[in-house]
Amino acid sequence: MNRLYHVPLSPFCRKVRLVLAEKKIEVELVEERYWEQDPDFLRRNPAGKVPVLRMDGMTMAESQPICEYLEDVAPEPALLPKGAKERYEVRRLCSWFDDKFHHEVTANLLYERVNKKITKQGYPESKNVKAGARAIKYHLDYMTWLLDQRRWLAGDHMTLADFAAAAHISSLDYISDVDWNRSANVKDWYAKIKSRPAFRGLLADQVPGFPPSQQYADLDF
Amino acid sequence: MNRLYHVPLSPFCRKVRLVLAEKKIEVELVEERYWEQDPDFLRRNPAGKVPVLRMDGMTMAESQPICEYLEDVAPEPALLPKGAKERYEVRRLCSWFDDKFHHEVTANLLYERVNKKITKQGYPESKNVKAGARAIKYHLDYMTWLLDQRRWLAGDHMTLADFAAAAHISSLDYISDVDWNRSANVKDWYAKIKSRPAFRGLLADQVPGFPPSQQYADLDF
Repeated sequence: MNRLYHVPLSPFCRKVRLVLAEKKIEVELVEERYWEQDPDFLRRNPAGKVPVLRMDGMTMAESQPICEYLEDVAPEPALLPKGAKERYEVRRLCSWFDDKFHHEVTANLLYERVNKKITKQGYPESKNVKAGARAIKYHLDYMTWLLDQRRWLAGDHMTLADFAAAAHISSLDYISDVDWNRSANVKDWYAKIKSRPAFRGLLADQVPGFPPSQQYADLDF
Repeated sequence: MNRLYHVPLSPFCRKVRLVLAEKKIEVELVEERYWEQDPDFLRRNPAGKVPVLRMDGMTMAESQPICEYLEDVAPEPALLPKGAKERYEVRRLCSWFDDKFHHEVTANLLYERVNKKITKQGYPESKNVKAGARAIKYHLDYMTWLLDQRRWLAGDHMTLADFAAAAHISSLDYISDVDWNRSANVKDWYAKIKSRPAFRGLLADQVPGFPPSQQYADLDF
């Protein structure tokens, strides 16, 4: 049986969970308290991070290489387009969300508010939370601009870029940090992706001590 | 004419330069003082980072998506293997160097010592420099372990993973931060990749105020 070591609100784990579910690859989820640096876990991934996927006799780390692998071994439904330019755009947006959005938004909001408490690293730094709250506005506006020209973030088809973005957005929505009144087309985009069967597992997540926001699992939010 | 906006010691720019040169794609290099946030440059890349590659009518950012694009449009010589597992291993190591090595080593050594001065952000923080000097030892040991089992970092053929690693290592060698006595097989690996024609452009780099280390351009270091 395939096994994914993860934590529920990690956007990188969520990206991999979404891709596995979309491609109908069954996997057993195992919560991993990676910050405790358990020697068994470090043997599985010397980088000490989640997600870690055990599949096909391999123990894989790093969400983007894992997703590329899944695309290679399970090409249907395709989450990367055929054309080189279109593939570039998907990968660029994955980097955008996993690097820039992660650094400017997710780290400042989710990690300050949730991860710090769970890993017992103190209280949220209000200057970081404020920076994250400012940055998410610009990012939602950037997504609005993309979605003014395209049906999905990277083009007219749903791709890995949509799952990368939805992974971050869904974690932030869990803690009520997405202003759904800011952009009608971002809300429409999220409603479309949120209603996919692949999303169900994420919407059932419950983190002890952090109840989800009211609209988190609501498909008509 | 293709054009690459870059800074000479950026490992991400170096990775793209190496891949372009290896694939014999001609490109005009333009140094970009990205930290000055010139509006023209920000129009080219809203993320405000280098490398930015103008090619095939596109303006591309993010080194890994750029390298994947180059592999798609110029598959020879191949820098990604054919098998899914082998491709995963290449991509995992690219992430390892561009994320973990970058964060633990390059940022603590190169950015503290060089970038801070060039961008007028103050003096090196000695605690960071010490952390970087400690971390590079573990990373060199990890590379030694990989190279004990393989001819190149990701397997028995040279791949993008070797260029990702060599991009970081070469920038650190420029400022004398690589201890070449630590591992004979890392030194052999670097000697092989450094002697490739694709490396020549990098070895000719000169950063004003920072003369290269004595062995930097020496193929018999």
